Amino acid sequence: MTPLPDLGLAEQLFETLAAQTRRGRGIERDSYGPGEQAGHDIARAAARAMGLDIVVDAIGNLTMVLPGRDRAAPMVLMGSHLDSVPQGGNFDGAAGVVAGLTILSAWRKAGRTPARDLAVMAIRAEESAWFDVPYVGSAGAFGLLDPACLSVRRADSGQTLKDALTAGGFDPGAIRGRRRLLDPARIAAYLELHIEQAPVLVHLDRPVAVVTGIRGCRRLRNVRCLGATGHSGALPRAYRQDAVAASVALLGYIDRSWQAHEAAGADLVVTTGEFTTDPAQHGPSKVAGETRFVIDIRSVSDATMEEMEVEVRAHAAAVEAEYRVEFDLGEASYSPPAVMDDGLQRALATGMATLGLPLQVMASGAGHDAAIFAAVGVPAGMIFIRNQNGSHNPDEAMDMSDFALGTRALAEAVTALAG
Amino acid sequence: MTPLPDLGLAEQLFETLAAQTRRGRGIERDSYGPGEQAGHDIARAAARAMGLDIVVDAIGNLTMVLPGRDRAAPMVLMGSHLDSVPQGGNFDGAAGVVAGLTILSAWRKAGRTPARDLAVMAIRAEESAWFDVPYVGSAGAFGLLDPACLSVRRADSGQTLKDALTAGGFDPGAIRGRRRLLDPARIAAYLELHIEQAPVLVHLDRPVAVVTGIRGCRRLRNVRCLGATGHSGALPRAYRQDAVAASVALLGYIDRSWQAHEAAGADLVVTTGEFTTDPAQHGPSKVAGETRFVIDIRSVSDATMEEMEVEVRAHAAAVEAEYRVEFDLGEASYSPPAVMDDGLQRALATGMATLGLPLQVMASGAGHDAAIFAAVGVPAGMIFIRNQNGSHNPDEAMDMSDFALGTRALAEAVTALAG
Repeated sequence: MTPLPDLGLAEQLFETLAAQTRRGRGIERDSYGPGEQAGHDIARAAARAMGLDIVVDAIGNLTMVLPGRDRAAPMVLMGSHLDSVPQGGNFDGAAGVVAGLTILSAWRKAGRTPARDLAVMAIRAEESAWFDVPYVGSAGAFGLLDPACLSVRRADSGQTLKDALTAGGFDPGAIRGRRRLLDPARIAAYLELHIEQAPVLVHLDRPVAVVTGIRGCRRLRNVRCLGATGHSGALPRAYRQDAVAASVALLGYIDRSWQAHEAAGADLVVTTGEFTTDPAQHGPSKVAGETRFVIDIRSVSDATMEEMEVEVRAHAAAVEAEYRVEFDLGEASYSPPAVMDDGLQRALATGMATLGLPLQVMASGAGHDAAIFAAVGVPAGMIFIRNQNGSHNPDEAMDMSDFALGTRALAEAVTALAG
Repeated sequence: MTPLPDLGLAEQLFETLAAQTRRGRGIERDSYGPGEQAGHDIARAAARAMGLDIVVDAIGNLTMVLPGRDRAAPMVLMGSHLDSVPQGGNFDGAAGVVAGLTILSAWRKAGRTPARDLAVMAIRAEESAWFDVPYVGSAGAFGLLDPACLSVRRADSGQTLKDALTAGGFDPGAIRGRRRLLDPARIAAYLELHIEQAPVLVHLDRPVAVVTGIRGCRRLRNVRCLGATGHSGALPRAYRQDAVAASVALLGYIDRSWQAHEAAGADLVVTTGEFTTDPAQHGPSKVAGETRFVIDIRSVSDATMEEMEVEVRAHAAAVEAEYRVEFDLGEASYSPPAVMDDGLQRALATGMATLGLPLQVMASGAGHDAAIFAAVGVPAGMIFIRNQNGSHNPDEAMDMSDFALGTRALAEAVTALAG
C-alpha cells in the first residue's frame, strides 16, 4: 500500500510560498536572491518539522532525506527547482518540491521506512532569466558548469553569479574547480513532477501526462542589429540603415522557416520574447539605429536545432547586405535534449493506471533539471500536471485536484521503486 | 546690392545654442521646456542688440521685425523652429532662425531700410517628439489646432500641453478659442532655410537646393499588439498569441508594400522608429504578450498616404486572425503635404544663380512649418542646406561654408522681395 500523500501540507506550503514571494501581480523567486532563499527556508522548515536529514551542498542545493533500511543502496530522488522567472507564477518548479515533501510526509505519518533512501532535492537556479546560465543548480551539482559562468551578470542588477553565490553563503570555488557534488551512481532514479507550461493537457482534457523527452535549447540571448539613425521622413529607402526593418526581415524569415520545418514534421519552436529599439536613442520621427532581441530555438532533435541556427546565421548575412546593417548574433547558449528512462515512464504510467487515469504521454517543450540528470546517466522520469494559462507568468493556475492525482501517481511509482 | 549676411553672428549664435542646450552627447531643446526657452532667450537677446522690434504672441512664438518704409504692406517673413527632438542636433530648426538674424543684422549694419517689414519668426514646438501634436507654434498661430491637443501629455514627463503653456507664461486660451494670432494676409512671403534631413545633397555633391514641396505625414503613434504571454519552449505554434511574431508579420507586410509602391513610382517613406516588448513582462523564455510601436507614413501625395494607411489596417485585421492577437492601431495624426510657391522657388533659384551655384531642386521628406504657411495661403518657399549624418540625431553636421551659400541665396531672394 502506498501512503496517501499529505495534501494538507501541500496546500499550506503553496500558500506560504505565495505569501512570502509575491511581488506585484506575480511571483518572484530570484535565482540565488532573497526570493529563491525564501522558498528554500520554507522547504527546509517543513523538512525539519518532519525530522528528515537535511543536506545543503556547496552551491546551495537542498536535499531532504528519509533514510532507508539499506543506506548503501542508491537513493530514489524526487525534486525540482524553487526559483521562478521575474513576474512568474507559484507552481513552476515549486510543485515538484512540494509533491516530494507531501510523499515523504505521508511515509513519516504512516511510520514506514523505505527500502532505500527516499529524498527530495530543492534545486537552485533552474531559470536562466536572472543569470543567463541554464541549470546552475543541477549542472553545478554534477560539476558540469563552465567556470566562465561565474562572471555572468544578473540581468537586472548586474551582480555576477560569483558574487550572488558568495552573498548567499555558498562557494563559487565548487564551480571554478568543476567539483562533482553529487555522484550519479548514488541515484537509482530521479523523478520530477512539474506543471505543463503549455495548454496541451487543457485542450486534451487530461489532468496528468508522463513525459517522454525534453526539448533542448539553442538560444541567441543578446542579438543586436546595428544600423544608423536617420530622419523618418527625409531619408530615402536607398540610403537607410534601418535596424527595425532589418530585424523584421530576419524574424519574418525565421517565422516562415519554422512553419516549413513544422510542415515537414520536425519538432521545433522558435521565439523572440524580447525585442526593443534603444530607448535612449529611438523616436517616432527617427529611423532606428539599433535593436536588441532574443532568438530562442527548441527541439527534441539536436539536428533540427542546429539546422535552424545555421539558417538564422546565413539569412542574417543576407539581410545585412540588403539593409546595410550589421547583426551581432553572439554565441548560442546550449542545453541538450533528453530522453526519459523507459522503466520510469512505465512506473509512472502504472501509477496513473492504478488511479484509473487514462494513459497520456507527451514531450516536454520546456527544459527541466531532469534533462541534466539524464545527461549524466541517471535514470530520469517526469510527470506533467495540467495547468491553465501557461507558465512563466502570474496567471499560472493548477487545480489542487490535478496536483493530487499527479502526486498520487508519483507516490505509486516511488513505492514501486523504494517500497 | 544685397548686404552680405553677418556670418560672425551666425557662428556665435550656433555656439551659444550648443553650449546652453547640450545634454549628454546630443542637443535637447524641449518644446515649451527649458531647452526651447533657452533658444528663444538667445535669439531675443541678439534681436534686442540690433534694435529690432520684438513681438511674442500668446503661445510663445517670437517675431523680430526690421520695420520697412511701408509698414502697411504685407511683410517678408523668414523663420523656422528652435526646438529639437530628444538627443537631436544643433541645426535642425535653429539654422533657419539664425540665417534670418544674420540677414537682418547685415541690413542693420548697412544702415538700409527695407521697402516693407522684414522679419524673422522663431516658431514654437515644431517637433512632435515631446508632445504628439505637429506644428504647435505655426498651426496655433493661425488658429488651426484642435483644442483637444491641450490635454496631450509630454512623452517623458506626462505634463499636458496646457500646463506646459501656462508654465511658460503663455495662454492656452488662444488654442482653446482657436484664436488667429497671425493674419495670413499680413505676410507677402514666408521663407524657411533648413538643413536637409537626409544625405541626398551629400550624395549629389551639392551644397544647397530649392525645395519644391513637403511630404505630409500620417502617423500611428501608439500601435499596440495584444497577445498572451506563454512559455517559449512549451507553447506550440497552434496555441500561441505571440505579439512579436504578429507585429513582425504586419511590419514585414508594410515593408514589402512600401517596396511595391516605390517600384510603381509613388513617393513614399514608411518607418517604425520605436518598437518594444513590455520590459515589465517580457523575458528570454517567454512568448511576448504585448508590443508597442510606431508606424510613420509620409508622402507628397495625400492619396498615397491614405492608401497605405488603409492597407495597414486591412492587413492588421488579417494578422489578428492568423496570430490570434489584437492590434490597437488608434487614430492617425495627420499633416497635409504642401506645394512651395512658384514665384518664391524662382526667387531662390535666382539667388543661387547669382552666386554661381548650379540649380538643384528636391522635395522635402520631412515636415516643416512652411507647410502650415502654405496651407493658409501664404506663399511659402524653402531652401535646403547640405548636412552630413542626417538630422534628429547628435551627429548632425553642417559646414558653415554651405550655410553661408544658402544664407546668401536666401538674402538675394529677400532683397528681390523687400529691397
